[in-house]
Amino acid sequence: MAQYETRHTDRTLSAGAMTFSGDDLEDFARGAAFLGAGGGGDPYIGRLRAEAAIAEFGQPKIIGVDALADDALVAMVAMLGAPTVLVEKGIAGEDIDLAATRLAERIGRPIDALIPAEIGGVNSTLPIVAAARLGLPLVNADGMGRAFPGIHMTVMNFEGVSATPFVVVDEHLNTCIIETDDAQKAEEFVRSVAVQMGMSCVCSGYAMTGAEVKRATVANTMTAALELGRAIVDGRRTGDPAQAIVDYLRSSPIYGEARSLFRGKIVDLQRETTRGFSIGSCTLAAFDDDTVRMDIKFQNEHLIATQGETVRAVAPDLISLVDAENAEPVPVEAMRYGQRVDVIAVLAPRALRTPAALDAVSPRCFGLDHDYTPLDALPASTNF
Amino acid sequence: MAQYETRHTDRTLSAGAMTFSGDDLEDFARGAAFLGAGGGGDPYIGRLRAEAAIAEFGQPKIIGVDALADDALVAMVAMLGAPTVLVEKGIAGEDIDLAATRLAERIGRPIDALIPAEIGGVNSTLPIVAAARLGLPLVNADGMGRAFPGIHMTVMNFEGVSATPFVVVDEHLNTCIIETDDAQKAEEFVRSVAVQMGMSCVCSGYAMTGAEVKRATVANTMTAALELGRAIVDGRRTGDPAQAIVDYLRSSPIYGEARSLFRGKIVDLQRETTRGFSIGSCTLAAFDDDTVRMDIKFQNEHLIATQGETVRAVAPDLISLVDAENAEPVPVEAMRYGQRVDVIAVLAPRALRTPAALDAVSPRCFGLDHDYTPLDALPASTNF
Repeated sequence: MAQYETRHTDRTLSAGAMTFSGDDLEDFARGAAFLGAGGGGDPYIGRLRAEAAIAEFGQPKIIGVDALADDALVAMVAMLGAPTVLVEKGIAGEDIDLAATRLAERIGRPIDALIPAEIGGVNSTLPIVAAARLGLPLVNADGMGRAFPGIHMTVMNFEGVSATPFVVVDEHLNTCIIETDDAQKAEEFVRSVAVQMGMSCVCSGYAMTGAEVKRATVANTMTAALELGRAIVDGRRTGDPAQAIVDYLRSSPIYGEARSLFRGKIVDLQRETTRGFSIGSCTLAAFDDDTVRMDIKFQNEHLIATQGETVRAVAPDLISLVDAENAEPVPVEAMRYGQRVDVIAVLAPRALRTPAALDAVSPRCFGLDHDYTPLDALPASTNF
Repeated sequence: MAQYETRHTDRTLSAGAMTFSGDDLEDFARGAAFLGAGGGGDPYIGRLRAEAAIAEFGQPKIIGVDALADDALVAMVAMLGAPTVLVEKGIAGEDIDLAATRLAERIGRPIDALIPAEIGGVNSTLPIVAAARLGLPLVNADGMGRAFPGIHMTVMNFEGVSATPFVVVDEHLNTCIIETDDAQKAEEFVRSVAVQMGMSCVCSGYAMTGAEVKRATVANTMTAALELGRAIVDGRRTGDPAQAIVDYLRSSPIYGEARSLFRGKIVDLQRETTRGFSIGSCTLAAFDDDTVRMDIKFQNEHLIATQGETVRAVAPDLISLVDAENAEPVPVEAMRYGQRVDVIAVLAPRALRTPAALDAVSPRCFGLDHDYTPLDALPASTNF
C-alpha cells in the first residue's frame, strides 16, 4: 500500500501528525468532499459539526499510523445511511459516544484511538467530532482512501480484519450490535437496521490493533484531504482550480494518476433514496455541443463515467464532480439540473486494486456489467 | 391476570410443574398449534425437534411460576420469522445456545430459567429444545397466551418489562443484539434483521426476574396446551373433537369463552411471504350453501373473521382453523384450497385485553379498520 510522504508545511507536523488552524478545517472538508467521490454527505455540515466539537471539547490529537503501539486498540467510527438523509438529521453527539462505548464494552478493553472508515464528506469530519468528545487520538488514515457505499468495502476487510462486533446507534440511542465473520453479511444487517433507523445512524466497528492499522488501512489520507483542499484554493488564485486538483493527485503517492474527463452541464438527473442509499444517474452535455455527452451512475458514490459504450472511468477508481468555475466538490445530494461541472477521475489507492479488494469493489459488485480497468489503462479523453 | 388452576392428572404435577411421557409431547404440540391461532409454524416439526433434544440431552424440568425465586433471572427464547420459512429451515441447535449465552453475557449474569415467548406451534416446543440443550428449567407460562406476529405483543411489554437486550442469531451463528427502550422499535429492528437472515432465526430477550414472570406473563399455558391436545384426542373418540376444544377452553380460567364460528371449505386463499411475515386472507364457503361464507385475514396469525360486514371474532381474541373431521389444528402455512375446516374463536386471556395491551394488539395495530370487541360481546353465529 502506498505510504504518503507528507509535504511539510508550518501547519502539518511530521509522520502524519496534524493540527488544524486557520482555514484548515474548511480546506480539509473540501478536499475530503472531493475524495468522497460524490458520497459522504455535505462537507459544510460536517465542518460545522467538527468546529462545534473542537470549540466545546478541544482539538483532538491527530497522529500518524507509526505513532500507534502495535498492540493499541483502534476503532472505526462513522455515520451510515443515505447522504440525502444525513444532511437533514442532526446526529453525532451522545450517539457516537455510545457507539464507541458499546464496542469497547463488547471487546472488554478500552479504545486507544479512533480511525475514519472513509475519507469523504461527513465521514471525514465525524471522527474529529468523536475523537474530540471522547478525548481520544485520531489516526491519520482511513479504510478506503475514498468513500464507498458499503462497510465491507474497506482495506481492513480485504486484509482480514473483522468488521464486527459492529455497533449501530440511532439518534434515540437505540443500539444494535452485529457479530458475523462475513463483512458483507455485516453490511446487509447494518444496512437493514439503518433503514429502520431512518437511514441515518452512527456506528463503530473494525476494532483492530495498531499493527493491523499499519498494514490494513490507507495512511495519511487526512493529510491528503487537507493538502488537496488547499490546492483547490491555490488553484483559484492561479485560474485553474480543476487542473490544480489533477496536478496534486498525480503527484500523490497514494493516488498517482488523475484526469479531467469532461466539462459540461447536467442535462438529466435521476436520483432516489432507496434501500438506504442515494441511487441514480446523471447525464452531462458539453457547453458548446449538446450532442457531446457523458453518463455517470452512482450509489452514494459515483461508480462509472461513460461516453456511449466507452468507459472513461470506473470504480474502484474515484470519479468526482466539481463546480466548473471554482472546483468546489459537488456531492451527489447537491447535484442539480443545469449545474455546470467538471468531471475528474482519480486512480484508486493500490490497496483497493488487489484481487481481494476487487472481490468487493469491482464494477460488478455494484451491479455494473463491466470489469475493472484502471484509469491509466483507459484512453484519455476530455471535451475541452 | 388469570391464573390457571391445573387439573391434576397422573401425568401433571401440582403448581404448574410438568413432565412429558407417552403421547404428551404430541398432545402438547397439537394443543399449542391450536392456541397459536394459525401462527407459529408446523407443530409436527416442532415436536420432532423436541423429541430429538430430549433423547440427546434429557427432559428439561418444567416448573410453575411459583417455583421461581423472585430474583431469579428468566429469559425468553423463540424462533422468529415467517412460519412458511420456519418449516423449511433446520435451526435450533448451537444457534439457540448462542442466543441465550450472548444475552447472559450482555446482562452479566447467568440465566436461571427459560420461558416461551408465545404458546403456539414451533415456539412452544423450541423452548423445550433450548432448555434441554442448556440444562435449564423451563417455566410453564408464556408471554402471550397465544401467538402473535410481533415481539412487542407480549404481556411482559404491556407490564413494563424491557424486551431488550434482544439477541437474534441465524443458522450461520451471525448475531445481532438490539437495545432500545421501545419494544415496538425492537420489533422493527429485529424484523429487518430477520429478513436479512432469510426470514428465519432464533432469539432470546425479555430478561426478567422471577417476580416479573409472576406478574407479567400468562401462567400455566403449557399445561393448557397439553390438556387441550388431550381433549381433542378424547373428542375424537366421542365423535365431536371440535366441540371438545370449545368445551375445554370455556372451562379454562385462562380463556373462559370459546365458540365454533363456521364450518366449510376453503374456496379462496391469498397468502404471501413478505416483510418477514406470512400475510394473506382466505374465504370459506359452507358445504351445503356456497353463498354462506366467512372471510379470514391473517398475518402469521389469524386476525379477523367476518361475514359480510359483520365481525365474528377479531384479535386479540384467538381464531383457529381445525380439520373438519378430526379437529387437527391447521396452521396458516398448511392451509390449502378445498380444505374442509372448522373455525373456532377463543376469548383472549385477560392480560391481552387491558388498555396497555390493546395499544399493541388491537385490530388497528394490524391495519384493520375495527375496534376490538371481545368475543363474548359479539353476536354468536355458526352455520351448522
